[in-house]
Amino acid sequence: MQSLENLQTLFNNYLAANAFTDAPSNLYEPANYIMALGGKRIRPVLCLIACQMFGGNPKDALAPALGIEVFHNFTLAHDDIMDEAALRRGKPSMHHQYNLNTAILTGDVMLVKAYELMCMVAPSHLAAVLATFNLTARQVCEGQQYDMDFETAKHVALADYVKMIALKTSVLLAASLKIGAIISNASTTDAEHIYEFGRNIGLAFQLQDDLLDTYGEAAQVGKKIGGDILRNKRTYLLVKALETAQGEPASQLNYWLNTADYQQEVKIEAVKKVYDQLSVKEAAQQAMQQYYEQAFKHLDAISTIPSPNKQPLLSVVQSLIQRQH
Amino acid sequence: MQSLENLQTLFNNYLAANAFTDAPSNLYEPANYIMALGGKRIRPVLCLIACQMFGGNPKDALAPALGIEVFHNFTLAHDDIMDEAALRRGKPSMHHQYNLNTAILTGDVMLVKAYELMCMVAPSHLAAVLATFNLTARQVCEGQQYDMDFETAKHVALADYVKMIALKTSVLLAASLKIGAIISNASTTDAEHIYEFGRNIGLAFQLQDDLLDTYGEAAQVGKKIGGDILRNKRTYLLVKALETAQGEPASQLNYWLNTADYQQEVKIEAVKKVYDQLSVKEAAQQAMQQYYEQAFKHLDAISTIPSPNKQPLLSVVQSLIQRQH
Repeated sequence: MQSLENLQTLFNNYLAANAFTDAPSNLYEPANYIMALGGKRIRPVLCLIACQMFGGNPKDALAPALGIEVFHNFTLAHDDIMDEAALRRGKPSMHHQYNLNTAILTGDVMLVKAYELMCMVAPSHLAAVLATFNLTARQVCEGQQYDMDFETAKHVALADYVKMIALKTSVLLAASLKIGAIISNASTTDAEHIYEFGRNIGLAFQLQDDLLDTYGEAAQVGKKIGGDILRNKRTYLLVKALETAQGEPASQLNYWLNTADYQQEVKIEAVKKVYDQLSVKEAAQQAMQQYYEQAFKHLDAISTIPSPNKQPLLSVVQSLIQRQH
Repeated sequence: MQSLENLQTLFNNYLAANAFTDAPSNLYEPANYIMALGGKRIRPVLCLIACQMFGGNPKDALAPALGIEVFHNFTLAHDDIMDEAALRRGKPSMHHQYNLNTAILTGDVMLVKAYELMCMVAPSHLAAVLATFNLTARQVCEGQQYDMDFETAKHVALADYVKMIALKTSVLLAASLKIGAIISNASTTDAEHIYEFGRNIGLAFQLQDDLLDTYGEAAQVGKKIGGDILRNKRTYLLVKALETAQGEPASQLNYWLNTADYQQEVKIEAVKKVYDQLSVKEAAQQAMQQYYEQAFKHLDAISTIPSPNKQPLLSVVQSLIQRQH
């Protein structure tokens, strides 16, 4: 049993040894740029963890784990164009560092590279791994489209919002775990359980992010509190508030969403007051709790695995929970 | 043995029955838009032809054939952004009909869809089909990057130009044939021969296009003659001329490439005069002839196939040659 730290090192070494070296450099060098911006490498490490948990050799999951990370970074490159984001992890986003065409084409070749890495699994696992990856890749695109659709939508139902964040953020975490499970010959039932664990954990993380941005402590969250409110970002809190507000709270919310002339602290406090009246913080906390519970129900259902073997997975989940509290 | 026309009908019916119907429609409807713009469906039909030629059932090649066509249209959607092309087959290009974000994201999901279709081949062929498709998809991106690099390059060697057009246009034709061959259990040697046939035919077609744009008859080519010269488009003719010109012809060429103030007919005639002095037409014709010869050498090398079975392939190649003469 390798520790979480060992698996992280294993992946980071593999990543470093597999930088893009092909020609033309104008195509591949930007891929190295975005991959080097860092990130916590959660998805590939989850893939190694799941592989080990089900009795496989985590080394056998290195190529698809890197494929997942390359895929994730492809989505970041293209999302940053679509969202007009100038920064990614504090550095210029790919289309700002280079240009639009580079970010499109390098993104494209990264998607192909992700498939090449997926195809490095043992032939006996190829069809199952690709079935999971194909579906997931398509769902991530669908999630991004729903997200853009919602930006201009008049009304977004809470259920649709949850579906969108599941597609945009959770299914890739879930697939990372499932692909690790497939590689170590886990049963179909267990592979589904670990997938559902990942999907629910992903949703819980997203709700936690939403809660922290409004209710966290700046020092611990590492950024200014209230950014989502100032940008009118559709979060679980805002979608829930818009869905439940009537009368005076609805008017208040409407006013703050549509006024451009405000003092930041005043807007944040006013919107939080509406949130308080509607108890959306509690609703979000409750939903988050339910996703965590669902996740752990699925993990417990994997009875073939001795508890100690689940430790690296629990460690990574706990580190992500604690990171922001 | 099904005729070329029957195979075309087979593919067109499959294409019509497999339009994108998933949600969200803002993601998938633009994919149907570009697929419906038409085109000659050369690549998917080549895939069916090769499958049948090596003794397989062309129906077994329908899904990957559609995958190739979806991939091709994905490249058109993204290339049109990069090339700032407003029109595609006489209709608005995807980013003009919709918007930039749609063309990026719909293109992305089309690439994923192409892989999903590839994965529908029999499990025993999956690894080989994907190996060919992965490499080809990557090469097409590389070709597009070289093409963009060359736009701003001071000097482009003829060998590099040929390498670029091979990547950008020929390898997908070649891979279409090879994938059809793999599906019908052709030997590795024969699969390579049919690949090389396609690659050389693709190069010959490209040179033919270049020649026709400058030396064709408008009525038969279906567009105004001399467009490449007016746009300073780097064609085999221009690259060859730039590589060989010295003294007065070099000055002349340089003048016409850099002057913005000219009468169209005067520029066309002047550049053609330089081409005549340098015999670039003859050089291009000779190179085209060599690619054709190479192609047919590889086709002849496939001795396991009775001549009549090669007829549909010869028909499609001849129709493409005659189409423009």
